[in-house]
Amino acid sequence: MSELHKLEGKRPFSLTQLPTEGKLYHYDRDVAEEEFKALRKELREWQTRLYAEGKQKLLVVLQAMDAGGKDGTIRSVFQGVNPQGVRVHSFKVPSKEELDHDFLWRIHKVVPGKGMMGVFNRSHYEDVLVVRVHDIVPEAVWRPRYEQINQFEKLLHDTGTRILKFYLHISKKEQKARFQARLDDPSKHWKFSLEDVEKRKYWDDYMAAYEEMLEKTTTPWAPWYVIPSDQKWYRNLAISRVIMATIKEMNPLYPSAEGDFGDVVIE
Amino acid sequence: MSELHKLEGKRPFSLTQLPTEGKLYHYDRDVAEEEFKALRKELREWQTRLYAEGKQKLLVVLQAMDAGGKDGTIRSVFQGVNPQGVRVHSFKVPSKEELDHDFLWRIHKVVPGKGMMGVFNRSHYEDVLVVRVHDIVPEAVWRPRYEQINQFEKLLHDTGTRILKFYLHISKKEQKARFQARLDDPSKHWKFSLEDVEKRKYWDDYMAAYEEMLEKTTTPWAPWYVIPSDQKWYRNLAISRVIMATIKEMNPLYPSAEGDFGDVVIE
Repeated sequence: MSELHKLEGKRPFSLTQLPTEGKLYHYDRDVAEEEFKALRKELREWQTRLYAEGKQKLLVVLQAMDAGGKDGTIRSVFQGVNPQGVRVHSFKVPSKEELDHDFLWRIHKVVPGKGMMGVFNRSHYEDVLVVRVHDIVPEAVWRPRYEQINQFEKLLHDTGTRILKFYLHISKKEQKARFQARLDDPSKHWKFSLEDVEKRKYWDDYMAAYEEMLEKTTTPWAPWYVIPSDQKWYRNLAISRVIMATIKEMNPLYPSAEGDFGDVVIE
Repeated sequence: MSELHKLEGKRPFSLTQLPTEGKLYHYDRDVAEEEFKALRKELREWQTRLYAEGKQKLLVVLQAMDAGGKDGTIRSVFQGVNPQGVRVHSFKVPSKEELDHDFLWRIHKVVPGKGMMGVFNRSHYEDVLVVRVHDIVPEAVWRPRYEQINQFEKLLHDTGTRILKFYLHISKKEQKARFQARLDDPSKHWKFSLEDVEKRKYWDDYMAAYEEMLEKTTTPWAPWYVIPSDQKWYRNLAISRVIMATIKEMNPLYPSAEGDFGDVVIE
């Protein structure tokens, strides 16, 4: 189940052929929500083991169009996880200092350490997406980044980091509905920006950029999952399934004591 | 209620006169746990407002003897808070690079940004505690730190950070019971270290160091709370009360929209 939405190999494909409707995969929302809640509880327990073991690292990368559900995923999936063991990084427009370095510099600084789960809300992938669509750097600069990303992720993988990358796939229609909901509800106005509406005009360009990115950066050591995300309840379930299956595979163990405590007397 | 355990002024006092028993303040554990759960739920909502507003910052500092409950407090009190808006930092023995700088350098790097809650599991206060008790630096170095800390915290306060400092106060007897529990239960061995038992021999020296530290660094802009922590359920409640009262006082507001969206049409 957890591998349902995993991309295989590096063959070209069309994003429009991949469904955005989770309900195609799961017909019963109530059942899905029950399973999701159980998984979330399980995640809390296994994250404690990962942290206690203090050896392995897990990195979760979230990419999506605006209103695609990145914030909601973090809030829902990681709710209840001990904040001591998880660290979320949201990558915004780079600062002057960040731009003075290579594009992976600011990313590398904040990858998870031993025992930690890191969650990236946007990531280095923006450097082959927004940067490409809006011609912020020339193709001669962004095209080599696919391979640079792959090698960077290989380094992380080879040094003890499991990497999971999720593209939250929503339809253009669903994005419109979510923008409209933000407009209609004054308490959601703060989430709305005219810039988002502006970017929406480049929808097809973004899809093309995502497609090539997914194709070029699908690797055995850092797989992409294209998650049907029009229904939030399905998105949460699908992502939780992948994360839980992965942590179980990592199988973190409570460490044994350092040395023999048989003789220890506490005064 | 929330100000019950707040230290007032800079007068000398004896830590042994301050109770470690929460049940002296609250006779009914079930009632306390109900209130705590309600506060935790409220914290989740108000943290969302703090994050959405994106202006103010909240820093929570936790100090305690070994087995005093710092990890447990983080797990319990912040469970359910959106990890996107809270960042926990655990300060360990400083690295070579950190020691090459002043003692506040590594702290300053990770203070919370706008809209964030930062939680420090140990902190710059170790630099007037462990460092003093074990003669790691001479008094001529650590003594000026009280004032350096006060001025540093004043900078944070004056630039938009609310600071809450908690000393989790446990008795020597309770520490023994917790160490023994870790020894007796193999699944808890990983939490146990012989170094902790070694440090326990310096209990009185630590109490003296804590006492002076609490006295010297109690300021109007960064108050200390001495939380009776022998009963975990009371500790959780007392800390939650202070945090919630503080956030309500900060009164973060959902920002209004940038500009007027009356004419916006989403294509």
